[in-house]
Amino acid sequence: MCSPGCRIGPLLAQQDCLWQRRPLAEARNRVLAEDIFSPEALPPFCRSTMDGFAVRARDTFGSSESEPALLEVIGELQMGESGTRYTLQPGQAVQIWTGGELPQKADGVVMIEYTRQLSDGEIAAYRPVAPGENVIAAGEDYRQGELVLCRGTVLRPQELGVLSGLGITEVSAYRRPRVAILSTGDELVAATELPAAGKIRDINSATLAALAAEAGALPVCHGICGDQFNALKKAAGEAIADADILLLSGGSSVGRRDFTLRVFEALAETETLVHGISVRPGKPTIVVRQGEKALVGLPGHVASAMVIFYLFVRPLIRRLSGLTADHGLRSISGRTLEPIPSAIGREEYLRVVLQDIGEDIPGIQPVYGRSGLLSPLVKADGLLPIGRDLEGLDKGSVARVLLFP
Amino acid sequence: MCSPGCRIGPLLAQQDCLWQRRPLAEARNRVLAEDIFSPEALPPFCRSTMDGFAVRARDTFGSSESEPALLEVIGELQMGESGTRYTLQPGQAVQIWTGGELPQKADGVVMIEYTRQLSDGEIAAYRPVAPGENVIAAGEDYRQGELVLCRGTVLRPQELGVLSGLGITEVSAYRRPRVAILSTGDELVAATELPAAGKIRDINSATLAALAAEAGALPVCHGICGDQFNALKKAAGEAIADADILLLSGGSSVGRRDFTLRVFEALAETETLVHGISVRPGKPTIVVRQGEKALVGLPGHVASAMVIFYLFVRPLIRRLSGLTADHGLRSISGRTLEPIPSAIGREEYLRVVLQDIGEDIPGIQPVYGRSGLLSPLVKADGLLPIGRDLEGLDKGSVARVLLFP
Repeated sequence: MCSPGCRIGPLLAQQDCLWQRRPLAEARNRVLAEDIFSPEALPPFCRSTMDGFAVRARDTFGSSESEPALLEVIGELQMGESGTRYTLQPGQAVQIWTGGELPQKADGVVMIEYTRQLSDGEIAAYRPVAPGENVIAAGEDYRQGELVLCRGTVLRPQELGVLSGLGITEVSAYRRPRVAILSTGDELVAATELPAAGKIRDINSATLAALAAEAGALPVCHGICGDQFNALKKAAGEAIADADILLLSGGSSVGRRDFTLRVFEALAETETLVHGISVRPGKPTIVVRQGEKALVGLPGHVASAMVIFYLFVRPLIRRLSGLTADHGLRSISGRTLEPIPSAIGREEYLRVVLQDIGEDIPGIQPVYGRSGLLSPLVKADGLLPIGRDLEGLDKGSVARVLLFP
Repeated sequence: MCSPGCRIGPLLAQQDCLWQRRPLAEARNRVLAEDIFSPEALPPFCRSTMDGFAVRARDTFGSSESEPALLEVIGELQMGESGTRYTLQPGQAVQIWTGGELPQKADGVVMIEYTRQLSDGEIAAYRPVAPGENVIAAGEDYRQGELVLCRGTVLRPQELGVLSGLGITEVSAYRRPRVAILSTGDELVAATELPAAGKIRDINSATLAALAAEAGALPVCHGICGDQFNALKKAAGEAIADADILLLSGGSSVGRRDFTLRVFEALAETETLVHGISVRPGKPTIVVRQGEKALVGLPGHVASAMVIFYLFVRPLIRRLSGLTADHGLRSISGRTLEPIPSAIGREEYLRVVLQDIGEDIPGIQPVYGRSGLLSPLVKADGLLPIGRDLEGLDKGSVARVLLFP
């Protein structure tokens, strides 16, 4: 028995080069597999951030409503026009629009609101402008050669915007790990079937496929396999052959758990890393390594399978995706609304609902229900971990809740 | 001028029937467009939650280590076998496995750990079992006819599991709204092009497309259009024709803002709902209704466009997707690590980073930078709203932060 995280380390060490080139339009939420350095300055030139007049700042020093600076307007720069068209001499200005390139020798922009037209070629400026005021300098966002994004960065909208602005339209991104999903049990039928007496529909395949996709993986469902050793060994071998991770769910039962382990160990070159964990729910968890692949035996009860997915499988998927080997769930503090009992000696994960209680942190309300039931999961917002050394939490305790994504 | 949310109400009233039938495997993160009632009981029969012996609970009352109950084992139910095969008489038991259907007249399960085999057909049970112990009753998860999931529910892994378990393999889900994206500006070139002097690459198309996809919409990029009235009117008209929402970005500049509005108003049957808002950044925002469609003029600066997207466009997309008409961003409380100034009379949205400060709530650190810059957005975790009636926040204030998804 071991706690989550203590034994999957070795499995995670060697899987660094699983990347592919992706066009930007398909790279959202993917993880960069390369550092990105700016190939050029962004913006490439000095830009105005206002509509107004580009000036030499010193020409406006001391100007005021009563003593405006008088400036000769030598022209207008249209949007997209090169600023090199004009070079300011002392006392000169050029009309300019937001985003436009400053003319040469200009170092500030007087907002149009603070000017008055005096004649066709002359304005009065009523406020002084500091050098750099209302201007974005060339390279102010990113200098040429600057590190823009690190390997391991998740590409959000703003990162895609930066890449676009730098003219980088393709990146190296980690590929999505392939997760094969197989449900076992003689009592199972597919969701599309009408179960005969004593049979029940497969719930775990759909749940685990969605969990895997949510974690960034490509799920591949391999259906249901009965509890016959050779058939299961064959199905498991085929499923892992073109996947990075195999999730075999079912086998919560004492007899079945060892059965799953025997099946995994019968596959070529496997090494058992985890067999049973001191976590509730989820005790009958198995993690077996096969080269750079992982075979995971998940409990048959869906709520247990989900907890173990978050604790063991999500870190694996994230690591293979170029992220840190943690569950990556957002966590927030909350206050328990009732005493919550727990047994010493195992880590417990309770399904909980968060409630606004008019404080800075929400209230935590457990959703009790056996781990074979789905309805408590449907009601829950996340999981409340209770450490193995705790007998539970008093009412009013502050604790961290892991939020479902 | 108005605050976010005050004028987009009318636009949101009439768009309820935009759903389609979806197979479960493609329904993750989609929103249910129908109430789901359970067509049958789940589980369909009484199941054991343990490996052990199905018994009549009363036969075990008072049993203990020193005075075990002696029970006749009349057989074993294999996984998936119908429980109707056996009917318990007083003093009888049937061996059973986790998930198996209970035999008739059984109402509890003694865990195998609390039994001892006495002879081939007899066991001793060392602990009493209460009626219903180690058993999930038929319909305990969902009764036949019970409301399982409401219209408007987002389908997470657990909801897909429930549907699968009930044999529901196709659902009515809201379709993804189509968001057309058009960038305007004579200074813009596509990300794939090398900008000439005075030109700059389009950043907003990639950013807005990713924001729209993240919100659940299908983005359709229509490229760049120059600032010519007729060309822009044509491009905008074509873009909105097969979309629900048009995002036209660019036009932060005073002259351009009215230009965008004139273009929108020149399209057939439009009604201007918003022209300028008291929000910073994002003042030059335009929302125009065209029948059941929305034309949104976004600021040209990417940071402003992003704020306005979250405040106005995301609620529209969510409403069209069957969700509530709010931004739907997670928010958490934090503590400001420095005084944060703000101007009275407009709502301000600051880009902020959250830091662990060893308290229940994180520290809030603003990332200052002009709204034309991308680098502050890349550093930020979310937005800190500061109300229009506040002069700012003191150091150490508790405030809510909207987290980027």
